[in-house]
Amino acid sequence: MKILALTVVSASLLMASPLAKQATDAGLKPIPNDKNELQKLIDNPKNPITAMKVELGKKLYFDPRLSKSNLISCNTCHNLATGGTDGVSAAIGHKWTANPHHLNSPTVYNAVFFSAQFWDGRDPDLEKQAQGPIQAHPEMAATKEHVVNTVTSMPQYVGEFKAAYGDDVKIDFEKVTDTIATFERTLVTPSRFDAFLNGNASALSQAEKDGLKTFIDKGCTTCHNGVGIGQDMNAFEVTAQYKHRNLGDFKGDANGMVKVPTLRNIVETAPYFHNGAIWDLKEAVIEMGRIQLGLDITDAEAESIVTFLKSLTGKKPNVLYPELPARTASTPKPSAD
Amino acid sequence: MKILALTVVSASLLMASPLAKQATDAGLKPIPNDKNELQKLIDNPKNPITAMKVELGKKLYFDPRLSKSNLISCNTCHNLATGGTDGVSAAIGHKWTANPHHLNSPTVYNAVFFSAQFWDGRDPDLEKQAQGPIQAHPEMAATKEHVVNTVTSMPQYVGEFKAAYGDDVKIDFEKVTDTIATFERTLVTPSRFDAFLNGNASALSQAEKDGLKTFIDKGCTTCHNGVGIGQDMNAFEVTAQYKHRNLGDFKGDANGMVKVPTLRNIVETAPYFHNGAIWDLKEAVIEMGRIQLGLDITDAEAESIVTFLKSLTGKKPNVLYPELPARTASTPKPSAD
Repeated sequence: MKILALTVVSASLLMASPLAKQATDAGLKPIPNDKNELQKLIDNPKNPITAMKVELGKKLYFDPRLSKSNLISCNTCHNLATGGTDGVSAAIGHKWTANPHHLNSPTVYNAVFFSAQFWDGRDPDLEKQAQGPIQAHPEMAATKEHVVNTVTSMPQYVGEFKAAYGDDVKIDFEKVTDTIATFERTLVTPSRFDAFLNGNASALSQAEKDGLKTFIDKGCTTCHNGVGIGQDMNAFEVTAQYKHRNLGDFKGDANGMVKVPTLRNIVETAPYFHNGAIWDLKEAVIEMGRIQLGLDITDAEAESIVTFLKSLTGKKPNVLYPELPARTASTPKPSAD
Repeated sequence: MKILALTVVSASLLMASPLAKQATDAGLKPIPNDKNELQKLIDNPKNPITAMKVELGKKLYFDPRLSKSNLISCNTCHNLATGGTDGVSAAIGHKWTANPHHLNSPTVYNAVFFSAQFWDGRDPDLEKQAQGPIQAHPEMAATKEHVVNTVTSMPQYVGEFKAAYGDDVKIDFEKVTDTIATFERTLVTPSRFDAFLNGNASALSQAEKDGLKTFIDKGCTTCHNGVGIGQDMNAFEVTAQYKHRNLGDFKGDANGMVKVPTLRNIVETAPYFHNGAIWDLKEAVIEMGRIQLGLDITDAEAESIVTFLKSLTGKKPNVLYPELPARTASTPKPSAD
């Protein structure tokens, strides 16, 4: 009897439920269970992930001395403690300057799955993305020289670059940002929804399954699909349709498209949309139905979808807060101006 | 033979060297090796340290949502990654406002050993201290109501307060700041110097021992003493003598006294002095000799003292970066104004 019972459980684990199949058919994909498969998915063949690069990248990610003021790190706006975001409507950076286009900081968690970075999708990967905010004036406001001079002024950093890349490593701006991106590539957060898609039919409650079905039936997966559950540019113009377009002058990419944000950890990443205009998740769901799908999502339907969305909260990687190298006499001084 | 050798080593470990005795006679005290002794030293009898309070206090310490803007946490100015400080001359807070008295952020590491908190020593302990910067306008700029409403809006926080203090806990502003202080009490960093004072004569190199001797002989221990190696108000007027008194209008306490900063981890906490006026440690040593001791410390003597000071870099506690509770509909919204 016991053996039989175990066999039944095991079979149900391996057999994808009809709903899981429907989800997959609609373009939703799980974070793979298999470590090698996941590694392949997040890796960068041009700069393979290694433990030493990740540890060094983590330090750089948390190092505010890369900014002109020495007060702003990557983690300031993409805070790993709060869903990988800053939780404010528009990002605020150097000299307390808000993003001039009123753009909201996207989460860094699972950003490795995005086919394009930034709200206008202008950069293809995290390596290129990491170069932007460090130099942007309303963000970290640093020059490439400031970053390189800061890092190379500290022997411990130089030693760690050599250990990670070899003694002949050239520590230029791109090497620094590539290393930050390597750390960011590891920031994936598998959730109960992934367990469900990976074959564990009982990983979601019935209410969550109902929500998933509504999510698919309403057409949310048209844009929110892939492993990122939102990872490409979408097919709708941003400028013409947003109710809150008075916030900022963002016009999307050359075709007026806006990058679809991930829904993973969505309960942790309010406020929502590229302009951070809406704080309530149910309201955001209804608004997206209206703008992007041209349909009225009822209160009950939106609640059901939100119930599903909560299952996308994932397990974050353990991050030991780094101890950064001490500055030296040659480390550039901060400037708050 | 082997047994004899072991006996000799053991004896040298237990016997304080003459220099260690001289250091102790001069008022220097080690962080105790013994866990119970250390616990007694850092504990608060009115609110005893427990693992649950420390974990909750860590979350609050790192939570930027306690600030008005939701962008500034305790860790912003007392960054555990960079020696417990922000590494800028004068602290910069809400709306990018510099400290109006041009005061430098003191380190939080080992602050539990200070007999007085703040540069003017106005608060007696970390519990009282933690109430200041959260409410100060150029720092976190929050009201007590903002802090309490933020914390109590998140059921996970409420649950953790109940787990830490009992179901009838009253989560008021003081309970929040007391819990932050409990975490801060654990931030002590034993160094090789402590091992030396605790009886391991070979924990310091000969050059470091020479530096320690110079440090004592010059009279630095007049102010830099105790477990904090700088923990009380000092006996000299701040206003009359500082070369850099053009930076800010700080006048010390009612008697013109300034709190002696700790020298622990001093190579990580530049720039130096209450006004953050000097970046170079050797220059700071020479300047202190001139101002506070009325004597000329030579370049060679200052270098020797710096060699000793480097041995005060301690082992930091491992801090797993927290995952903070998600905000809810009733969590106060940030305001950057």
